[in-house]
Amino acid sequence: MRGSPDLITIPARRGKAARVKAGQVVTVINTHGQQVVDTWAFAAGDLGEFMSMEHSRAAMRKIVPEVDDTFVTNRRRPILEVIEDTTPGVHDTLLAACDSYRYVQLGAAGYHDNCTDNLAAAMRELGVAAPTTPAPLNLFMNIPIVDGRRLDFQPPVSRPGQYIAFRAAMDLIIAFSACPQDLLPINGVDCRPTEAHFTVV
Amino acid sequence: MRGSPDLITIPARRGKAARVKAGQVVTVINTHGQQVVDTWAFAAGDLGEFMSMEHSRAAMRKIVPEVDDTFVTNRRRPILEVIEDTTPGVHDTLLAACDSYRYVQLGAAGYHDNCTDNLAAAMRELGVAAPTTPAPLNLFMNIPIVDGRRLDFQPPVSRPGQYIAFRAAMDLIIAFSACPQDLLPINGVDCRPTEAHFTVV
Repeated sequence: MRGSPDLITIPARRGKAARVKAGQVVTVINTHGQQVVDTWAFAAGDLGEFMSMEHSRAAMRKIVPEVDDTFVTNRRRPILEVIEDTTPGVHDTLLAACDSYRYVQLGAAGYHDNCTDNLAAAMRELGVAAPTTPAPLNLFMNIPIVDGRRLDFQPPVSRPGQYIAFRAAMDLIIAFSACPQDLLPINGVDCRPTEAHFTVV
Repeated sequence: MRGSPDLITIPARRGKAARVKAGQVVTVINTHGQQVVDTWAFAAGDLGEFMSMEHSRAAMRKIVPEVDDTFVTNRRRPILEVIEDTTPGVHDTLLAACDSYRYVQLGAAGYHDNCTDNLAAAMRELGVAAPTTPAPLNLFMNIPIVDGRRLDFQPPVSRPGQYIAFRAAMDLIIAFSACPQDLLPINGVDCRPTEAHFTVV
């Protein structure tokens, strides 16, 4: 996987998007093991239709997906099916993408890279604009639920090179952000965001 | 509470919205005890800013709010603070509003009332249009998390007349839908949606 000529880099603290045809497989690799990758998918024909966490949780009847679960759009159509996951299966569907407002609240001085702006920039590279920032699928993000109610923010439990793979159920645009969060340990206890990689084959 | 002249009806299977000033208290009453009430709040000055479940979960570090927790908008500003809850505290922030697509999948014959259309109709009554259907706060909805991952769909545990109250942190429009779901027992084992009520004082 790591040596594949098809490997596309999601640079540290940055976003990257790609066009995917129905039936193709998107594999997201946690190259260094501790990087959260915010993930979005938009219907190629209408960016107003997109992978929706709140619709997918209802469809899957789960908070966290497993192999054979299928994410759906805000129109409840299948968009991404989980076909393989070599990580321990810890991902987050609950939390918003980080944004400029978040980093102001966390006390960041000046502009801080953020997943919301990274999504917009990644889409711009493809010549398109998302009409909104949907709630993301936060791959490799470890947000345990305590006592059935409270959320804890913990470092990822994945190891370098572990990956999760999805089959596209429609033509779509996939977009990623290597989360630039360095004020909380969600990208590892070192708070040092890294690159990640993906393939579309 | 039930005899208050300020009591506003959310008709069974329908929506209702109202304007609320900062500092006012919105009280939502589960009049018959088993009715889920989908709830949205939009900033009065810009309907593109609204109460966001995915931002609120991050701010509260909880899946389900309790008294003294504050919901925030998609710009992370406080919008509704929980100030009282006489129910057992079981509400849902995880699931999308029901919509026409949902009822087609559940096998409903013809058009079925749904919370998404109810939101649009309620906003129209006030002469405005929401630019999107945000993920709702599903008051009184009982979606237990099983094994930290799976979701169960259960009837409400609230009793007739129990209520939850919020203080508005900004001028806003509050919108409700008495969920018309009658194919799953989320509005009670009888699958019979009822009216609910609210006050703004």
